Amino acid sequence: MDELRIIHDSQNMKFRSPFGAVEIQQKVKLSIEMDRDVIVAVELLKGNEPIKNIGMNKEYLNNGSYKYSAVIDTSNYTGIIEYYFVIIDGYSRLYYGNNDERLGGVGRVYNYDPIPYQITVYEKSIMPNWYKEGVIYQIFVDRFFNGNEEGKIISSKSNSFIYGSWNDSPMYIKDSSGRIIRWDFYGGNLKGVINKLDYLRKLGISIIYLNPIFKASSCHKYDTGDYEIVDEMFGTNEDFKVLCTKAKEMGIRIILDGVFSHTGADSKYFNKFGNYETTGAYQSPSSPYYSWYRFINYPQSYECWWGVDNQPNVEEMEPSYVEYIIKGNNSIIKKWMDLGASGWRLDVADELPDEFIRMIKEKMNEVSSDNVLIGEVWEDASNKISYSKRRRYLYGRELDSVTNYPLRENLINFVKGYIKSDKFAKKVLSLFENYPRENFYGNMNIISTHDTERIFTVLDKRIELLKIIIALQMTLPGVPLIYYGDEAGLEGGKDPENRRAYPWGRESKEIIDFYKVIIGIRNNENALKKGDFKFYNADLDVCVFERCYESERIIVAVNISERRITLDNVNIEGSYIDILDKNKEYKGLGINNILTLDGYGVKVLKGK
Amino acid sequence: MDELRIIHDSQNMKFRSPFGAVEIQQKVKLSIEMDRDVIVAVELLKGNEPIKNIGMNKEYLNNGSYKYSAVIDTSNYTGIIEYYFVIIDGYSRLYYGNNDERLGGVGRVYNYDPIPYQITVYEKSIMPNWYKEGVIYQIFVDRFFNGNEEGKIISSKSNSFIYGSWNDSPMYIKDSSGRIIRWDFYGGNLKGVINKLDYLRKLGISIIYLNPIFKASSCHKYDTGDYEIVDEMFGTNEDFKVLCTKAKEMGIRIILDGVFSHTGADSKYFNKFGNYETTGAYQSPSSPYYSWYRFINYPQSYECWWGVDNQPNVEEMEPSYVEYIIKGNNSIIKKWMDLGASGWRLDVADELPDEFIRMIKEKMNEVSSDNVLIGEVWEDASNKISYSKRRRYLYGRELDSVTNYPLRENLINFVKGYIKSDKFAKKVLSLFENYPRENFYGNMNIISTHDTERIFTVLDKRIELLKIIIALQMTLPGVPLIYYGDEAGLEGGKDPENRRAYPWGRESKEIIDFYKVIIGIRNNENALKKGDFKFYNADLDVCVFERCYESERIIVAVNISERRITLDNVNIEGSYIDILDKNKEYKGLGINNILTLDGYGVKVLKGK
Repeated sequence: MDELRIIHDSQNMKFRSPFGAVEIQQKVKLSIEMDRDVIVAVELLKGNEPIKNIGMNKEYLNNGSYKYSAVIDTSNYTGIIEYYFVIIDGYSRLYYGNNDERLGGVGRVYNYDPIPYQITVYEKSIMPNWYKEGVIYQIFVDRFFNGNEEGKIISSKSNSFIYGSWNDSPMYIKDSSGRIIRWDFYGGNLKGVINKLDYLRKLGISIIYLNPIFKASSCHKYDTGDYEIVDEMFGTNEDFKVLCTKAKEMGIRIILDGVFSHTGADSKYFNKFGNYETTGAYQSPSSPYYSWYRFINYPQSYECWWGVDNQPNVEEMEPSYVEYIIKGNNSIIKKWMDLGASGWRLDVADELPDEFIRMIKEKMNEVSSDNVLIGEVWEDASNKISYSKRRRYLYGRELDSVTNYPLRENLINFVKGYIKSDKFAKKVLSLFENYPRENFYGNMNIISTHDTERIFTVLDKRIELLKIIIALQMTLPGVPLIYYGDEAGLEGGKDPENRRAYPWGRESKEIIDFYKVIIGIRNNENALKKGDFKFYNADLDVCVFERCYESERIIVAVNISERRITLDNVNIEGSYIDILDKNKEYKGLGINNILTLDGYGVKVLKGK
Repeated sequence: MDELRIIHDSQNMKFRSPFGAVEIQQKVKLSIEMDRDVIVAVELLKGNEPIKNIGMNKEYLNNGSYKYSAVIDTSNYTGIIEYYFVIIDGYSRLYYGNNDERLGGVGRVYNYDPIPYQITVYEKSIMPNWYKEGVIYQIFVDRFFNGNEEGKIISSKSNSFIYGSWNDSPMYIKDSSGRIIRWDFYGGNLKGVINKLDYLRKLGISIIYLNPIFKASSCHKYDTGDYEIVDEMFGTNEDFKVLCTKAKEMGIRIILDGVFSHTGADSKYFNKFGNYETTGAYQSPSSPYYSWYRFINYPQSYECWWGVDNQPNVEEMEPSYVEYIIKGNNSIIKKWMDLGASGWRLDVADELPDEFIRMIKEKMNEVSSDNVLIGEVWEDASNKISYSKRRRYLYGRELDSVTNYPLRENLINFVKGYIKSDKFAKKVLSLFENYPRENFYGNMNIISTHDTERIFTVLDKRIELLKIIIALQMTLPGVPLIYYGDEAGLEGGKDPENRRAYPWGRESKEIIDFYKVIIGIRNNENALKKGDFKFYNADLDVCVFERCYESERIIVAVNISERRITLDNVNIEGSYIDILDKNKEYKGLGINNILTLDGYGVKVLKGK
């Protein structure tokens, strides 16, 4: 069987229909074409185990090829079904499977051990429009704005430092072994967020995601000390309520960061240092919290998050913990939603059992259907395996959205020229194919976070590249997130440099103006908020895609090179106006009026 | 000449008269006794050079000994005259000189190279009574009290940290090479000192010595940034004026810390970082301050204090520097005295040329005779040699007072049992012998400073020993200094632990009460403030001395052992009352009513 011409393209409806992930009980039609009359079967797998082998029907095509087709019934299963094709010609046997990068689309022939394609099968779940169609602003509260009168800082934290000046560079204060010995604060607080709501509204923001705000010793507050109260430096529970109310009045929702895989060692639950009045697990085995933790050698040795001993891991499925965090009548999940939170972002979702996440979502729906649950996941969340288990994040009962770190990586690689636009498109489409559409459109599309270098720094302060990446972020499917200060041109490398204080009064006018324009466009255009999506093939330094909603159509085109590029192979019909640059009009792109991009050009074209 | 019985005791008026240091042109009678009829001469030296050899007159004593005497004329010389005796018996020659520790008192016979005795010859200078008879309180301003409303901290310092809590332990924030990279502040200020004047008056304080207060980057401010203004975190020049005025109304004087051997690298003079508007020496050789500094390789390499490159040394004798600091019509020395300072403490006096110090004192006297100049000197200041030159601190034209670190060392060694009371007495008497009386009585008697561990920590928190050392400090000649917080029982090891914030509200009642009583006694008794002084021989674990002024007489006795000790060899006549413990009366100590000290007992007995 040499010189076999054979093709299956999982992203092409001719070969697989419907596109991408499918709802439970939905049928999927698979086809494969080749230039030979053979026997073809599709092998279905679940969790690497073959479960079914389906013979395919042969059809002769006019061009001398054969098309083999079969319909898969996903039945009641939710999760991932994998498949590859088995081709039998007499005594010889070949396979056709996914490409080596598992990106979907066109695959290849294997002599053995084919890499399978993925079909994600999910239960339908709908997330609220305010989330899917919103723009998120992430706030690391200590570093955003101090809303106290005259910038007063109220601190009752012992062994801590306040930066002498708002504009000082952040730093960790460590001992010689690298352990942080004092926490560092700028004094930002919830009142500061309230004071700046108007600023955020004018920026075009409709969702605020707050890094953790509960009482904790650190400045980042991922070491929760008390899930029930706002940290005293950040304000009070009442401040949080006021923030949610005022924000909602302005059309802005608040999402909280829930850190449930570990607590602080300095917490009312563990109470390693006796700073709380409770009897903590560290202090006595008769503590009501004793069963929450995993002691190796009581009390000195215990499991902790990444070996950081101020963050002891919890036994999430311990009934009293589940009751406290999720199920109780005034559980933590419920309490903060009652106070006004519209959603949760789950820190280190990979560390949380699926069942724990499922219960959280269930509880959230019980409180209000108008909620969103986002998970911190750094890879393709549809097939993520953590601790040897495939995670069920996106199958309909857990997460609505995940942190789209893969997009960030691909955007940066493309804009910096490390990958070309064809590869970029393939990577984006791979997620599109694997994620339920609702999740793909609900992706939290980040370009910086508190855990990454700031985008302006990543791009070596090249403002022309910054504009390109922002334009892509704001026009691709998914919910764009602005990490506080990025819009002001804030720079910053690795943590803690990426957690500088917002440069009030020293913002970059050029950057902030660009953000305002592009966010405004995003907010105005249904096509960008929820429209269909497809890439065009173009020059390798150029990325062109289309968003379409009902009769509305938007074309986005960017050029990451310094060359002026004429896209004579992009063939788009109709008349367009460049809504980034109102003076320009285009007719019948690619035919009557060939689209040309200046070096580092960005065009957002709206069909007339 | 074996078995020669021979004695000279420089501290015994029988052998040397008058006692100790002498005024210029005063004659000194020296005698030496031995059991043999020989030829004796006294060899006089200045700066190790023999200058005169005086034959001594022989006199036969009833006890079979001979007494040899001569009178020395100190002439117009000021400084140190040294002497030893040459004993010639036929062809043999011996010497009698000071003991090996150069402590004065009884010496010994040498075969060669005798160690000479010291006579300090000085010009008379009188210092004001408020100083000699006062009690000093040393304040490290940042750590004493924040007098702003609600403890607000006003900081315009970039790259600095404010402690999150007043009671946090201090720490330096250093990079891996040990260089301080951020300065740390608690927020104490001059308003805080003003607010606490009443507290200090009630404690019995009459002098406040402030660690440096001029604008500077650090918390300690020994890296002066601008000699002309109070650091903005400490307040304003007006605050200083108010402090001086209010303090004076309450009978409290203010002494400033003058740091003139170096400036800050971050200063308006050197301006290494361009933080000042001036053209600093580091920035351009055409800077008006260029000639103040000693560049090795311009501008990167320059002489600095102990190699600390944020404190470049100055060329003190540079005329423009002398004019600016000392001689000008509004010189730094004058300016701050005009604003209310009653004196200066000169930081690292050993680094300042004698002539520079002399000019400072001259200028101070020009401004007001009612001033005091104190030098930071860590050893016997009467014969201190720095940079191969014998210093002229105490010869009448420079310092009134020095930091009595030798006393501190001796007190600690005695109280902790490292030396016995006989050795302690010898060490104290050695300074008494070498210092002009005015300077000895003007010694700044410290037991802790910002440069030492705190006394309570040195004494391992043994409160019984603490009381003994405080009692000795408050009753020995010299001006006692309380390092802020010591009276509250503040602990602290080496820098920065010794610079903790004053523990307002957490003071040790026992310690503060003892301080109040003993300072009250000191302030009430002329004998303690200016009385004559002599030790009694007693048990080696006991120190007994007498202070006498006109008809007033006080006996101080302490026992550093846990044994109850009866001082049957201390023979003191008269009736006494224990003014530390008002219930106890003593009659004819040592005869009718033998003085007994309980373990760790302290008695301050006042003649009736």
